Amino acid sequence: MELDFIKNLVKTNEKTKIVLLVMDGLGGLPVESGGPTELEAANTPNLDKLAKEGICGLHVPIGPGITPGSGPSHQALFGYDPIRYQVGRGVLSALGIDFDLGFEDVAARGNFCTINDQGLVSDRRAGRISTDKNKELLKLLRQIKLEGAELFLETVKEYRLLMVLRGKHLSGQVTTTDPQETGVPPLPPKATAPEAQRTAGLVSEFIDQARDILADHHPANMVLLRGFSMRPKWPTMEEVFGVRAAAIAAYPMYRGVAKLVGMKTIAAGDALSEEFEILEKNWDDFDYFFVHVKKTDSYGEDGDFDHKAALIEEVDGMIPRLLDLNPDVVIVTGDHSTPSLIKYHGWQPVPALLWSKYCRSDEVTRFGERACMRGGLGPRFPATHLMPIALANAFRLEKFGA
Amino acid sequence: MELDFIKNLVKTNEKTKIVLLVMDGLGGLPVESGGPTELEAANTPNLDKLAKEGICGLHVPIGPGITPGSGPSHQALFGYDPIRYQVGRGVLSALGIDFDLGFEDVAARGNFCTINDQGLVSDRRAGRISTDKNKELLKLLRQIKLEGAELFLETVKEYRLLMVLRGKHLSGQVTTTDPQETGVPPLPPKATAPEAQRTAGLVSEFIDQARDILADHHPANMVLLRGFSMRPKWPTMEEVFGVRAAAIAAYPMYRGVAKLVGMKTIAAGDALSEEFEILEKNWDDFDYFFVHVKKTDSYGEDGDFDHKAALIEEVDGMIPRLLDLNPDVVIVTGDHSTPSLIKYHGWQPVPALLWSKYCRSDEVTRFGERACMRGGLGPRFPATHLMPIALANAFRLEKFGA
Repeated sequence: MELDFIKNLVKTNEKTKIVLLVMDGLGGLPVESGGPTELEAANTPNLDKLAKEGICGLHVPIGPGITPGSGPSHQALFGYDPIRYQVGRGVLSALGIDFDLGFEDVAARGNFCTINDQGLVSDRRAGRISTDKNKELLKLLRQIKLEGAELFLETVKEYRLLMVLRGKHLSGQVTTTDPQETGVPPLPPKATAPEAQRTAGLVSEFIDQARDILADHHPANMVLLRGFSMRPKWPTMEEVFGVRAAAIAAYPMYRGVAKLVGMKTIAAGDALSEEFEILEKNWDDFDYFFVHVKKTDSYGEDGDFDHKAALIEEVDGMIPRLLDLNPDVVIVTGDHSTPSLIKYHGWQPVPALLWSKYCRSDEVTRFGERACMRGGLGPRFPATHLMPIALANAFRLEKFGA
Repeated sequence: MELDFIKNLVKTNEKTKIVLLVMDGLGGLPVESGGPTELEAANTPNLDKLAKEGICGLHVPIGPGITPGSGPSHQALFGYDPIRYQVGRGVLSALGIDFDLGFEDVAARGNFCTINDQGLVSDRRAGRISTDKNKELLKLLRQIKLEGAELFLETVKEYRLLMVLRGKHLSGQVTTTDPQETGVPPLPPKATAPEAQRTAGLVSEFIDQARDILADHHPANMVLLRGFSMRPKWPTMEEVFGVRAAAIAAYPMYRGVAKLVGMKTIAAGDALSEEFEILEKNWDDFDYFFVHVKKTDSYGEDGDFDHKAALIEEVDGMIPRLLDLNPDVVIVTGDHSTPSLIKYHGWQPVPALLWSKYCRSDEVTRFGERACMRGGLGPRFPATHLMPIALANAFRLEKFGA
């Protein structure tokens, strides 16, 4: 469904409240054939009760077989088709470090790299220099002045950096300078649209000056830039869905994606209890709450089945606090799978439960991958369906047609 | 799938017969958590037998979370995507009272309303005047003569009326005169396309004369008009699906939607036995029968769980008569949910069964919401899929590709 279609059906002035609780990378796999997944191994009496009273299923974040990045998979949970609404790599880098990107800025993801005497790239990651070295070198590069544009340079991590140009009439239609291989020179930045000529010129000027400044700093004697992009102007969740939405997340990347859809973002610490305190304190001021739990994903990426299961149990322990707030609709799910078996994001569908008085419960009595396959939401439903279904269960949509 | 795609596969000259039996608002909810829905509470041995021999599921009429009006949800059951094929409010009003709308007519839904001395709307529904009063006032308004167009005015119910303009070169591209709030004047009708200038002028002329005629008839001293629209020219079911289709329905609205897709319509009384008699009498003359049962929805809207369940049992009692006709394909479903718990149309998926010798039966052994979730049609399949699946089971579609 198009956002415009839903927008026309949204009721305003409703008082109902929706909570989306996301355990990052929730979906898992058994370590041994026939064994439990992380979620199935966890003892989750509260989530099981929600599953029993609610409706369950497994969602497909992007499309069949597609392994999602966290950005697009969250977009889908928020109701924004991640294939239609795409974000450039530069913008994602900015979001990931809480850089306050304006609508006229152009952002690019950068790498420190090594070039040899012939000017050919010999290491695209400059020997993976330390974050401290990165910071030291960026101090030098910040001397660079560009005609008619402000330059921002930020350390991301190790050899990774963010470059932002701020000024009038800039454009993200500039080609990468990263050849993606060694033994060849960096590529010259080129405008792919007439309005990007000036931006390409600024980038070229930056690179020339950077090469001079870094000349004696082997192995980090050059930078490569890619993913030139501008902050997309998407309709906000308030405009489309009529909800005042808040994001409670410890990691900047997730607050960043939430900002793209117009959520108010509230930084939290890593502790679950802190996130739920923030939820309680802000309960009266918003209609829709996105609460993000990061570490389920991190443990999955570490291949740490037991800690992932233990954290799921910890989240389970928070559910009574959530229900004490008397929400109208609760969704508990992940943004994607991160099975500890594969130590990486996975394409496997993600367990999801939706709880409300009017959801029409199915026969699922516990929250787990296999149980959810028999649920009323279906074993492979598009993640973008969750938002309109949540709005319906909160009585926030008008009837379509007479 | 596009209708054109299916059209190219349709076989002509087949003799097989399809019956679509719709219990309006069939889908329900448990009144108590864990309890049965209306359909689950009903004792339905014949429907259960069809479910056991057939294939079951729950359909989504419009889209995830969307609460359907009866018009679009029936379109979907007939195989016409209700988002792509939309009908204006005026046309729906005409259909709802069996007004024989031509392809050149412009229809509008009207309200009697109250305006105060300053000409501001003080009550958009004129104190909800009686149907009799409505009829009396329309007699007066029928005096109005318009240059070059015929005027039809029909009572719908209470304060609601239908206005139709008939003439050459009319257009539905005219804006509403209903401000949708009080304390402001009615809006002037405006053309939103050049070809609608004349129509907007005629509407304006009608309104001016109506104001004069109604001046002394407080509270019904003015009319508001909205939903200007023309009968859409959709391909008929015979053109697309190759079936001679008949609609058997007691309520005009449903016959009206059936007419939009080219069905022959046969009015029936409220009694189920009468509808099934008509079905029997007309059995030889059509390939596709849409039989509509209205009162399941009415009981749902009344919050009358028990009567809704009892009527479902009554429909169940008719199934042997239906099977005696030896149909090739039988579909039993609703157009949407109307849970007596919420006394209104709901967005919840709708139980559906399709019975034929070739459907490939699933493991569902009774007809109910939770049982259907485990069915072979899936727990959330698009309602528009039913028509092509029915055609296939009636051997009315060619193979696609060599």
